[in-house]
Amino acid sequence: MKTQVAIIGAGPSGLLLGQLLHQAGIDTVILERQAPDYVLGRIRAGVLEQGTVELLREVGVARRMDAEGLVHEGVELLLGGRRVRIDLKALTGGKTVMVYGQTEVTRDLMQARAACGAPIFYSVNDVQLHDLQGASPYVTYEQDGRQQRIDCDYIAGCDGFHGVARQSIPQDVLKHYEREYPFGWLGLLADTPPVSHELIYAQHDHGFVLCSQRSLTRSRYYLQVPLQEQVEDWSDQRFWQELKMRLPQELAQRLVTGPSLEKSIAPLRSYVVEPMQHGKLFLVGDAAHIVPPTGAKGLNLAASDVHYLYRILVKVYRQGRIDLLSRYSELALRRVWKGERFSWFMTNLMHDFGEHQDAWAHKMQQADREYFLNSHAGLVSIAENYVGLPYEEVG
Amino acid sequence: MKTQVAIIGAGPSGLLLGQLLHQAGIDTVILERQAPDYVLGRIRAGVLEQGTVELLREVGVARRMDAEGLVHEGVELLLGGRRVRIDLKALTGGKTVMVYGQTEVTRDLMQARAACGAPIFYSVNDVQLHDLQGASPYVTYEQDGRQQRIDCDYIAGCDGFHGVARQSIPQDVLKHYEREYPFGWLGLLADTPPVSHELIYAQHDHGFVLCSQRSLTRSRYYLQVPLQEQVEDWSDQRFWQELKMRLPQELAQRLVTGPSLEKSIAPLRSYVVEPMQHGKLFLVGDAAHIVPPTGAKGLNLAASDVHYLYRILVKVYRQGRIDLLSRYSELALRRVWKGERFSWFMTNLMHDFGEHQDAWAHKMQQADREYFLNSHAGLVSIAENYVGLPYEEVG
Repeated sequence: MKTQVAIIGAGPSGLLLGQLLHQAGIDTVILERQAPDYVLGRIRAGVLEQGTVELLREVGVARRMDAEGLVHEGVELLLGGRRVRIDLKALTGGKTVMVYGQTEVTRDLMQARAACGAPIFYSVNDVQLHDLQGASPYVTYEQDGRQQRIDCDYIAGCDGFHGVARQSIPQDVLKHYEREYPFGWLGLLADTPPVSHELIYAQHDHGFVLCSQRSLTRSRYYLQVPLQEQVEDWSDQRFWQELKMRLPQELAQRLVTGPSLEKSIAPLRSYVVEPMQHGKLFLVGDAAHIVPPTGAKGLNLAASDVHYLYRILVKVYRQGRIDLLSRYSELALRRVWKGERFSWFMTNLMHDFGEHQDAWAHKMQQADREYFLNSHAGLVSIAENYVGLPYEEVG
Repeated sequence: MKTQVAIIGAGPSGLLLGQLLHQAGIDTVILERQAPDYVLGRIRAGVLEQGTVELLREVGVARRMDAEGLVHEGVELLLGGRRVRIDLKALTGGKTVMVYGQTEVTRDLMQARAACGAPIFYSVNDVQLHDLQGASPYVTYEQDGRQQRIDCDYIAGCDGFHGVARQSIPQDVLKHYEREYPFGWLGLLADTPPVSHELIYAQHDHGFVLCSQRSLTRSRYYLQVPLQEQVEDWSDQRFWQELKMRLPQELAQRLVTGPSLEKSIAPLRSYVVEPMQHGKLFLVGDAAHIVPPTGAKGLNLAASDVHYLYRILVKVYRQGRIDLLSRYSELALRRVWKGERFSWFMTNLMHDFGEHQDAWAHKMQQADREYFLNSHAGLVSIAENYVGLPYEEVG
């Protein structure tokens, strides 16, 4: 088989890149280790930056999002007993975010891929990348017991943190940057109306709470929990009880509970690998970086990488601008690091670090809370990062 | 001897508080362990926030400052090869800072004290505070071999970090918060014209540089140096050579060198004690808190404490509002912690931490630099803190 760009991974970033390139007349093949249902079963983020929304519109996969997604003009922060609304729209000169689940984005992109008939192979095994530094890279894999080969110009590694793409780069050319946090998030998904029409990020002495949502009838709540906590120890009842305890009374009273559709614990981590490219391979999204979910940057940074790689590849194929290829990592990373900074800042601002924070650091955390919520510039700073910082021009 | 407020320490905060209270018709006695020349010999900060300037005007000790001081409408930050001017005036809606040496402020306040004839005793020994929790506190000290006693209503501890005031509070009621930094500042004072008309905070791989000034003909330069560095090892020639090496060429070429009037190394430290009061004793300035000098907050936070204590005492004596006394520590600390936060932030932003910073922290430092200097909100945030955040009303 031959193609122009081989895409490893059919999560939202691989599908989005595939669709954008297809629309631009560039051939792609997408390979995915899992079955479609498995991919759709992953419960992830639900807040799309304006730039991500625009990319979905640009590629013509926004009809359902624009019909069913919820435009949010603000988020609320509960800190030290105060409830402060961050008026995203007013503070950023009109920008907003879109609440629309990552699962739905993936489903829409899958349907678009199927509709356009471009090749996508699920449940493939033993994906290997070859000759990344040579003129003719290729990908091999196994499907239904048969060995397959795809020759291509470039490879996009959209296969997540545990994927084969990053692991195909010689270890000695990569630098890893990492911060682990001493807690995780226990998440619960339920078909109940959200407790509030906007997202609520709430600090509490027993740990942080996020009241999130996927739609007007589907809620997603998170509790900060110690790393050693087991999801089996959290009955629905215990979850709802703990959530109510951590929320102010007026919210706890309004909270509608119900059976969980999904419940899981995820550790919080910051991670970046540099560079995000090696020869003909380009890493995209979680394959190159992880953010803690505070700030909702995970999917949006993946879309940011797609944005840059797509614009570069279009100029490569249409204008012969192969000089731009070497700039991908640098361009993508500049925005990634800003997203990492904001996610790290928000995580530090909102969580209870207990004994993992010395007395001085605790006071600085309180001083940050005090300053950022009482200063207009502080509020603008949170708002402009939350809706997403602007993209740079590609060469 | 009897007075209303006994003030321990004749540095700028003790003198300023004394002058404000005297002007309000409240009797004070000031005690100072050192001789006047020793007090004037301390080389300290030179940047006054607008609030500090207004306090000096309010007390009628601003004639020389207004004639000789330099109003600065901006400061420059040199970071990662970029030179960014923080337009303080434009970014804060008209606020500026005043460059006027702490030594000059002290001299002006000393003269005002002498002119009004209010009692001030220098070179006193063995100052002791008594009955802080009782109805009739008093201070004893020794001068010229004779034991003296001052009965008073209240005591203001303006005697600095090493003074007797904080040490007179039982250790078990105080909480100390502290951060030490793995470097110090080597400062040099010279009668040479400043290298630039505004202050320059410059990051360099060999360490941070501050190009400061006291007047149009007197410069103050600082170099970040390792903690173990000895001032004896730094000839003037070596200092100027290192300074030039750390500055961009256009500045290095313009730098006028000359013999040092003073040269010293100070470690950088953040420190706060809580509460700032105990019975009839109120701590002011360095007696309760220390900031690293990045951000020029030391003298200004002392003036902030004076501001609050003065306004409270005036309401106590004029309106019998003794209820306000218990609010001093809380009011003063709220602003102190914001100043501590900014000084810590600026110190972290500008210095080279070398091996004392892990790879992730280094990347977050770079991301902070990148974000704050490229965002309008980030620049406003630096500017509004640099000129000084607003004061709260006193009850």
